[in-house]
Amino acid sequence: MKQIQALLFDVFGTVVDWRTSIIDEGRVINQQQGLEVDWAEFADAWRAMYQPSMEKVRTGKRPWTILDHLHRESLDKLLIDYGISNWSEEQIEYLNRAWHRLKPWSDAVEGLTRLKRKFIIATCSNGNVALIVNMAKHSGLPWDMVLGAEVTRHYKPQDEAYLESARMLGLDPEHCCMVAAHNSDLVAASRNGMQTAFVARPTEYGPNQDKDFSAENEYTHVARSFLDLADQMGCPP
Amino acid sequence: MKQIQALLFDVFGTVVDWRTSIIDEGRVINQQQGLEVDWAEFADAWRAMYQPSMEKVRTGKRPWTILDHLHRESLDKLLIDYGISNWSEEQIEYLNRAWHRLKPWSDAVEGLTRLKRKFIIATCSNGNVALIVNMAKHSGLPWDMVLGAEVTRHYKPQDEAYLESARMLGLDPEHCCMVAAHNSDLVAASRNGMQTAFVARPTEYGPNQDKDFSAENEYTHVARSFLDLADQMGCPP
Repeated sequence: MKQIQALLFDVFGTVVDWRTSIIDEGRVINQQQGLEVDWAEFADAWRAMYQPSMEKVRTGKRPWTILDHLHRESLDKLLIDYGISNWSEEQIEYLNRAWHRLKPWSDAVEGLTRLKRKFIIATCSNGNVALIVNMAKHSGLPWDMVLGAEVTRHYKPQDEAYLESARMLGLDPEHCCMVAAHNSDLVAASRNGMQTAFVARPTEYGPNQDKDFSAENEYTHVARSFLDLADQMGCPP
Repeated sequence: MKQIQALLFDVFGTVVDWRTSIIDEGRVINQQQGLEVDWAEFADAWRAMYQPSMEKVRTGKRPWTILDHLHRESLDKLLIDYGISNWSEEQIEYLNRAWHRLKPWSDAVEGLTRLKRKFIIATCSNGNVALIVNMAKHSGLPWDMVLGAEVTRHYKPQDEAYLESARMLGLDPEHCCMVAAHNSDLVAASRNGMQTAFVARPTEYGPNQDKDFSAENEYTHVARSFLDLADQMGCPP
């Protein structure tokens, strides 16, 4: 096993609790506007449009498009479905940027801070650069670098998203370890030569979660949290 | 004047003292190998090949090539000029990566740490991602993001290096401020709509420095150091 020099992190679900964050922002909107939207349902519906929207880019049916734009297109459709037609452009864009304000799981900032002392810690997410940078500023996520979709112009799990991210760090994939709460992401990273770390996030999808409760393959590390991962990787408090 | 949201930093000369750093590494090599190379001359000769090497990429005479490779090609030529023919690949590559270990000016880390509390701080350098990330890890430079040449595939002062860097942050150029010790860099940033901050580094080029002693144009800020810049921009200690 090669020595790990960089950790590449999936973000949505692995580092931040997107579902609770969107629900919390939505409930504030309900209060402010006297709405009765079911924001758990809304968040799930919005997220359900995520993979299909990226798939059009992956397959070349549309040119490179950043996630902020895909999120906005999905949101515009959802607002119609929910009968919300009186919002200003500013209000719609504010909700779209809720993805820039997602809150980290409680162990994320401390775990990353510990891991950063020994390793390069970079994102390898499908989020665009502004989304990930703003999220980091909002919550104190101490990334060394934002890699992944926008800088490689490929959405995971396409090989280029992993290979080009490693290449930009000047590293062979074998010296990188992908960290994710999703088995499929780690399978793709492993296929491209990376080491892998699984951290379960069993409440990511709320009561309807039906996968990714545990490591379904052999990974380099399997951890209960980022703190446990830091312990395993020799980064004590 | 629009509100500044992100500061984009030139790196070589503005944040780090490349000349002294290369000289210091070279003198260690002299001691280790019993050589008598004039490393001040060597450093200046290496840097003199920097702009011509990038110009071939800018003009399309060669495809996109990262700075690590350009530095290495220049180094290979210099080693011939200096009659050094007995080094291993590992020794040559170690010296080439001296650019990954350049030391910051004494005010840089503290100034950046203060500025980071209020602004996004990103690099907009001609250095490739690995070079800038490794330098940051080596010296504790607290960048939020590495932008500039490699992620935009354009070398400054080409417009795209500035415009694409701002675009990746989701910002209009007017909300970005380029920080540099070089008048030519700020002229190009300003031409592309950015605000500008000049920080003089009058010893960057050693005793032969013949330019950039002072601000030669109107800039948004003119500061004596990153600490002075932090004071001017409302980021107290």
